[in-house]
Amino acid sequence: MEELSLIAAIRAMNTPRRRDPGLVAGIGDDCAIVRPRAGEDLLLTTDFVIEDVHFRRRTHTAADVGWKALARGLSDIAAMGGDARYALVSLALPEWADQRYVRGLYRGMNELAGRHGVAVIGGDVSRSAKLTLDVVVTGAVPRGKALRRSGAKAGDVIHVSGALGHAAASGYRERPEPRLELGRKLRGKASACMDLSDGLALDLHRLCVESKVAAELDGVLPSAPGVTLEQALSGGEDYELLCTLPAGVKAPAGLTRVGVMKAGRPGVVKFAGMKLGTGGWDPFR
Amino acid sequence: MEELSLIAAIRAMNTPRRRDPGLVAGIGDDCAIVRPRAGEDLLLTTDFVIEDVHFRRRTHTAADVGWKALARGLSDIAAMGGDARYALVSLALPEWADQRYVRGLYRGMNELAGRHGVAVIGGDVSRSAKLTLDVVVTGAVPRGKALRRSGAKAGDVIHVSGALGHAAASGYRERPEPRLELGRKLRGKASACMDLSDGLALDLHRLCVESKVAAELDGVLPSAPGVTLEQALSGGEDYELLCTLPAGVKAPAGLTRVGVMKAGRPGVVKFAGMKLGTGGWDPFR
Repeated sequence: MEELSLIAAIRAMNTPRRRDPGLVAGIGDDCAIVRPRAGEDLLLTTDFVIEDVHFRRRTHTAADVGWKALARGLSDIAAMGGDARYALVSLALPEWADQRYVRGLYRGMNELAGRHGVAVIGGDVSRSAKLTLDVVVTGAVPRGKALRRSGAKAGDVIHVSGALGHAAASGYRERPEPRLELGRKLRGKASACMDLSDGLALDLHRLCVESKVAAELDGVLPSAPGVTLEQALSGGEDYELLCTLPAGVKAPAGLTRVGVMKAGRPGVVKFAGMKLGTGGWDPFR
Repeated sequence: MEELSLIAAIRAMNTPRRRDPGLVAGIGDDCAIVRPRAGEDLLLTTDFVIEDVHFRRRTHTAADVGWKALARGLSDIAAMGGDARYALVSLALPEWADQRYVRGLYRGMNELAGRHGVAVIGGDVSRSAKLTLDVVVTGAVPRGKALRRSGAKAGDVIHVSGALGHAAASGYRERPEPRLELGRKLRGKASACMDLSDGLALDLHRLCVESKVAAELDGVLPSAPGVTLEQALSGGEDYELLCTLPAGVKAPAGLTRVGVMKAGRPGVVKFAGMKLGTGGWDPFR
């Protein structure tokens, strides 16, 4: 597989099907060219998916890996209340990854991209010992309307979407569903928002640090049957939304209350009367 | 080194020094938030720098690697005639890379970023066996004014900046200088432009394919003393600009004529009467 033919194959798999006035140039030039819409802020995020760090070949098909690589960025856009727009895919391939595998990657990626109106408009290709994807996703929100981690106040009610620990309990094999629709519904309602990639304990700690508040969790966490407390608190990779709503603001459907923000030492999260460790999923431990 | 402390260190190294009305939020949230300026198109590019593919620890300091990782993207922005604005840095670290090494990476990156008014506003961190950087760079051009690969016509004169084969002759150890100022001067003048990352033979072939023309090189190529013909044609990593100017348009300073575009089979590049192979630097061979 030569670089020219690989790029040609990737370009063929990512030819936009319909005209998009916001996309001036996709794959095929030194940069992609995007035309921003008036009155919008632009969101930018980039996430790795690396063999034996974020997935194993034994448990994930090529399409699963492609899906996950895009899902991580889409979940970040959801967390800001944004519409997802474009993706750039950097792909470093080991010797074993043939054209069929690459087609599988993009099939999984494009299945998810199609659901959210996202187009792959650029990227890079290279070699590496372990399959490495780094996916950039761009999104947009009405000017000044992005949800941030930093807006929570003492007294705000903490909510999460979905069931915690679900990814851990499934051995991280299921395809995550980025909560883009829910994120958009939280615009103008949530005082703070982020996605749950590393587990509630670590991610809520981060949100508290940015908002300079503490948090106290209720006694009961929404979780699927059979999920352990450790998985619910620190399983990671659920890609659900964690948000805070001022008291009295009605939560959109799909959210469950898990606690309340408190004045206190910034970043401290309490559960059952005890301080939680920041023991989320950490590739550096 | 834990993920939280690594991110905190990276954030501290990349705190913007002056207020930028275009940057709503940098490192610290799920996405970076950028406010586009009216009348501008946005440029997006992303490039890998991987240990033992793009550099070796024996020959490149941490700062050299950081510089190079950003230079690749800046060169793409230069090739479109753009102003560089922001970078997002995805960094996967092997066990041997300690905080000191990470500081070195960002020191090299920020040395180059500072020269071109670029700020690092986001990224990702992970683990890997080989040091892997994937750097996203954003840029901007006046609406509709981006230089493309696809605009060259038969009769246009082909130019390059700098000396070809310089990087190869130096063992790829020198720090490349992205030609951003020259790129901006080519706006409204060049009919096509790209950067020379893989060598004149392969890159001019690509430009010809996109423009649906052929090319004929003159007999003499601008190159540093001691550079071989192979290095000048296919050495790669020069990060100089390759552009075409309609006959009669005066070339800005810093460019040397190397040939002329011809009607013919798209992509065919001739030198000394013979067709050139597309034998640029290819990590897949």
